[in-house]
Amino acid sequence: MSSSWGKRIRISLFGESRGAAVGVVLDGLPAGEALNLKQLQHFMSRRAPDGDELSSSRREADEPKILSGLKSGFTTGAPLAILIENKDAVQPEGEDRTRVPRPGHADYPAQVKYHGYQDAGGGGHFSGRLTAPLCAAGGICLQLLNRRGITIGAHIASIASVQDERFNAVHLELQTLQKLQSLRMPVLSAEAGNQMRRAILCEASDGDSLGGVIECAALGLPIGLGGAWFGGLESRIASLVYAIPAVKGLEFGDGFAAANMRGSEHNDAYVLRDGALGMETNHAGGVLGGMSTGLPLIFRTAFKPTPSIAKPQRTVDLQSGEETTLCVTGRNDPCVVLRAVPAIEAATAIALLDALLEG
Amino acid sequence: MSSSWGKRIRISLFGESRGAAVGVVLDGLPAGEALNLKQLQHFMSRRAPDGDELSSSRREADEPKILSGLKSGFTTGAPLAILIENKDAVQPEGEDRTRVPRPGHADYPAQVKYHGYQDAGGGGHFSGRLTAPLCAAGGICLQLLNRRGITIGAHIASIASVQDERFNAVHLELQTLQKLQSLRMPVLSAEAGNQMRRAILCEASDGDSLGGVIECAALGLPIGLGGAWFGGLESRIASLVYAIPAVKGLEFGDGFAAANMRGSEHNDAYVLRDGALGMETNHAGGVLGGMSTGLPLIFRTAFKPTPSIAKPQRTVDLQSGEETTLCVTGRNDPCVVLRAVPAIEAATAIALLDALLEG
Amino acid sequence: MSSSWGKRIRISLFGESRGAAVGVVLDGLPAGEALNLKQLQHFMSRRAPDGDELSSSRREADEPKILSGLKSGFTTGAPLAILIENKDAVQPEGEDRTRVPRPGHADYPAQVKYHGYQDAGGGGHFSGRLTAPLCAAGGICLQLLNRRGITIGAHIASIASVQDERFNAVHLELQTLQKLQSLRMPVLSAEAGNQMRRAILCEASDGDSLGGVIECAALGLPIGLGGAWFGGLESRIASLVYAIPAVKGLEFGDGFAAANMRGSEHNDAYVLRDGALGMETNHAGGVLGGMSTGLPLIFRTAFKPTPSIAKPQRTVDLQSGEETTLCVTGRNDPCVVLRAVPAIEAATAIALLDALLEG
Amino acid sequence: MSSSWGKRIRISLFGESRGAAVGVVLDGLPAGEALNLKQLQHFMSRRAPDGDELSSSRREADEPKILSGLKSGFTTGAPLAILIENKDAVQPEGEDRTRVPRPGHADYPAQVKYHGYQDAGGGGHFSGRLTAPLCAAGGICLQLLNRRGITIGAHIASIASVQDERFNAVHLELQTLQKLQSLRMPVLSAEAGNQMRRAILCEASDGDSLGGVIECAALGLPIGLGGAWFGGLESRIASLVYAIPAVKGLEFGDGFAAANMRGSEHNDAYVLRDGALGMETNHAGGVLGGMSTGLPLIFRTAFKPTPSIAKPQRTVDLQSGEETTLCVTGRNDPCVVLRAVPAIEAATAIALLDALLEG
Repeated sequence: MSSSWGKRIRISLFGESRGAAVGVVLDGLPAGEALNLKQLQHFMSRRAPDGDELSSSRREADEPKILSGLKSGFTTGAPLAILIENKDAVQPEGEDRTRVPRPGHADYPAQVKYHGYQDAGGGGHFSGRLTAPLCAAGGICLQLLNRRGITIGAHIASIASVQDERFNAVHLELQTLQKLQSLRMPVLSAEAGNQMRRAILCEASDGDSLGGVIECAALGLPIGLGGAWFGGLESRIASLVYAIPAVKGLEFGDGFAAANMRGSEHNDAYVLRDGALGMETNHAGGVLGGMSTGLPLIFRTAFKPTPSIAKPQRTVDLQSGEETTLCVTGRNDPCVVLRAVPAIEAATAIALLDALLEG
Repeated sequence: MSSSWGKRIRISLFGESRGAAVGVVLDGLPAGEALNLKQLQHFMSRRAPDGDELSSSRREADEPKILSGLKSGFTTGAPLAILIENKDAVQPEGEDRTRVPRPGHADYPAQVKYHGYQDAGGGGHFSGRLTAPLCAAGGICLQLLNRRGITIGAHIASIASVQDERFNAVHLELQTLQKLQSLRMPVLSAEAGNQMRRAILCEASDGDSLGGVIECAALGLPIGLGGAWFGGLESRIASLVYAIPAVKGLEFGDGFAAANMRGSEHNDAYVLRDGALGMETNHAGGVLGGMSTGLPLIFRTAFKPTPSIAKPQRTVDLQSGEETTLCVTGRNDPCVVLRAVPAIEAATAIALLDALLEG
Repeated sequence: MSSSWGKRIRISLFGESRGAAVGVVLDGLPAGEALNLKQLQHFMSRRAPDGDELSSSRREADEPKILSGLKSGFTTGAPLAILIENKDAVQPEGEDRTRVPRPGHADYPAQVKYHGYQDAGGGGHFSGRLTAPLCAAGGICLQLLNRRGITIGAHIASIASVQDERFNAVHLELQTLQKLQSLRMPVLSAEAGNQMRRAILCEASDGDSLGGVIECAALGLPIGLGGAWFGGLESRIASLVYAIPAVKGLEFGDGFAAANMRGSEHNDAYVLRDGALGMETNHAGGVLGGMSTGLPLIFRTAFKPTPSIAKPQRTVDLQSGEETTLCVTGRNDPCVVLRAVPAIEAATAIALLDALLEG
Repeated sequence: MSSSWGKRIRISLFGESRGAAVGVVLDGLPAGEALNLKQLQHFMSRRAPDGDELSSSRREADEPKILSGLKSGFTTGAPLAILIENKDAVQPEGEDRTRVPRPGHADYPAQVKYHGYQDAGGGGHFSGRLTAPLCAAGGICLQLLNRRGITIGAHIASIASVQDERFNAVHLELQTLQKLQSLRMPVLSAEAGNQMRRAILCEASDGDSLGGVIECAALGLPIGLGGAWFGGLESRIASLVYAIPAVKGLEFGDGFAAANMRGSEHNDAYVLRDGALGMETNHAGGVLGGMSTGLPLIFRTAFKPTPSIAKPQRTVDLQSGEETTLCVTGRNDPCVVLRAVPAIEAATAIALLDALLEG
């Protein structure tokens, strides 16, 4: 198991769903960077369950406590250790994920791999709860990126069959990204947002769950950011995004649709714009050869439906060796996509700052 | 730029499209592993252009020369350095990729990043030519995996709108994967293969190009292989697959389709099979919580159409600062997907052996 | 600044001398390892100041709080986060290490590097206080090594000119190492220990400090542990030992004395011992070609005298730009060597477990 | 086995003493750096055996062939692959290092570790021959450092009991370092050099060998270069220097002598020099808290005597299980220290450039 990542920026995640705390060590930041903790808390709160019917009833304030690496509001150049206490962790009576694995969860392969030694409650270290420290680390990286002229934003592109509008891949505006950060339901079309909400509530009331797609963009990247092969932006972002639980798909620019296009359709022609080189289209999603082209970086991530559902599911009791039925009635989001939006932004921020500091 | 990858297995790629040679250093293999060089050469030849009208007319035998780490046919435990000479590299007269960048290629961002110092001929270090050493490293990893009961295979799932059959996600047979390795056009349905061939030739004759999708599978993985977060199978495979030029999309199991499913549809129920735990479906593509479930690991990769096309394209002359038109008439594949199949298998093999040796 | 280390085992240190806490994330341990927390606390207490006149008057219980990765006394396979609160951190009035740097400390280069943003109080992240989490991580690794038949022990080889006996490089007994772990003043000759104590007290009363040498040994290493070049035992141990503050020298086996020997004197001949291959001497310190020979691994580390001394020292006021005189009257050890013994053992344990798990 | 190193700069060594070639991949260099290949060849030639009676009679020109990453004399930003052919590798008849291990060599632990699969001829991958590619990589790093105002130089501080003068730790002159680079026997005192030569020849004629000490210095380092813990200059340099075969000791500044000093003697006081902060002494060897102080970086490395000696030595025939006697009559240097001088400079250059590029 490797919960560490990074070349120039190094992050080391720790914690379990129902342990004392989750957290992260973030090493490699430059010294002298002002951190706005209020802004960080706001970013974290976008991930936190807010108690409405769209998210888990678990009550977590998700206050990141910075234990080191910060003095008088500025980074010191030493590692930042960030602790987020688990204040509302409960272990339901009778629940034993090492004995009756939940379909769609890490329970069963973890049981085989760790022979029952894993902390299985609530998914343990595999839990989406760990996206809290990921967001803390990413939220800090975002502030450094903003200071360098880079902005990241994301919206829910779809929930089940309800589609939001797409980002304008060429003329994406800074304000569009900024506005999304203040929305509880980050969508471009308010009407689509309402429909998404209804779709989720409908499934939730039926004891079922939904998946969806998040579209993420970054503006202000210097041309040439990234590099060849494993240093490419797509490779770096993919290794972080695919670490987030429930992610099953990732595509940059036209992505899978590009596979059905001709070269003459997909290539983004170079043209003159006010005397400077520009591009009329952005099928590439802002990346060529692993490097930023200067146009908006755009990618989409597919999330599977929340595996925890109240509907009865078939599974096997590993102790008795018999088939059984399981209803997962814990405090689960009927659709993880809403709270995953800042996690995707965070992963992107870490990857981009890592590339940027590498020079 | 980072052309190095790995935790337990470390690979370090080098070379340029038109340099003396391309190659790789592969460090971290156990000692005492028999290497079948004939089998490696066969694997490499699946990637090499074969001179028919479906691939580049560049003539490269792609003979991997193993300079170190091998003695009497067995690995020694020391790094394997593998050299593949460029025997048919030509630099067309008048071509200057630092001055007139090709749309869809790394030319322009590389020019900005490296200020003209990059080796731009034929894409230089960004060239798909570097998938030759990637295949050499991966082909060796494949042999070690085979010896441990793991088989990897891939087929062309689609070229443009022509679709091959899909892998049977639950009952995928070893023979199916093995048979694909002997096909010049690796498809499950011969009829689909013929249509793909015709589609490519049709576009090629029009000076255009096509993209496509590759579906890859691995059989025989031990349950629990991989781990949480950045050590997960999806994260590891993604970081390697996204290093391959022209990859724009990646999805595991149902992937993007999962985003449109209910939890009750997507979760793979656990059932008893001959007294042991089994699964009736494999929507997850064989991975839960970053770990192998024991079912076939299945993922799909989308490739954009070859950016080099003979059709005239708009671009800008960076020296004169004026718009111009460019026809790329080099020796390019009208569709990179055919030759990318072993590259995808190779990337998968490296990722899986790395996870396996980590224990 | 890189406070992360590791290949198979990864440690990430954090914290400052006078912050809320110091700590470490330890990733990569196998699951199912029993941890004896009482034994860990005993190991930590060997590093903690004990309030006698030989060490700092700072009162720190150094209780390692394990936040994650442990369940019912066994490792889970997830990262262990360990927190050690700073309970007796005080910031003396008027002290400003960014303005008047202490000779022999990191103050001045840190001020130039971090432009005053570093946490300078008590040395901040550069403080020996960080050896507490290093010992916590190492103390855990030690328990895993013990379970695999490997024991590490160290003694004070010298303080100033007072010499302890040397380890018997060939016939070193397990009991010798074990006994040392229970001694407050870990020496082989009690008389030497008494003289060392007197020497330290004498200098302390004069407002001065002393350095010394620690000799460390490991028994039970499998033959061949380690590897060539950067994977060699000496390279791995050196990278960790040289991270410990005040270390200025390191030698394996005969070390610097070997430079003055003939090959015929230094080579350790192979002989038969009870029918098996053995060695009559151990000039190599148990390492050849970066690999364990099966004989005791033995090395010595030189520590400079504690730079914090009460005697007046010349320095420069960086603000006024004038020379000044500084007496460092904080709570400092007159000789860091005593408390550094477990830190050396810890660094060795981390390096050896990393090599061992790499296989 | 790990033959890869690096954070910002990554090197990957490969090859064996008697294989086709040895080499290195050097990744992470900036683009646009002019490389002077003549200067590189001169640097390499200082390591190459020159056929006089002081070194091996093996004839190797050690011409580094750069396969990639270089265009028109400038680095491209892509990895440099460097190949050095083995032109004079011979395998003496009857020699079998897997059966009768040479005392003082890697033969025996390698045989246990790799079960006979290692390439044992001439030490294989463990051979000092691999310092050729290390020097190639380091020689290139040196050129980049020189361009940034940093110079590295080293001399033989002692061979057996013959001592050269020491570097002046405070007022070390650039010319002193530069002059050393042109000397076949790099010493400060020509008379000491003559005595060393005689001492070596005397032992060689007796079939024996000698060890020695190299003192290395770097001038022009920016204050604050390096960092805390594992990012410190001492930790980085140590991990590279201890990878070089035959190194058994390393000390910075006063090193082991510091262990016998008082704090008031060892601390380097800060004083005003022409209005700026300076230091009157340099007991620290130019490093405090892992960071450069601005004074010369100075360290010493102890080499054991060459283990290959013509004198008969006791060893064991692993096949027959009986004691036997071995005379190593190959082409070995009677003292490796002479040819190790550029290897130490190379290791230092790699470590310092890595730290410098990290910023």
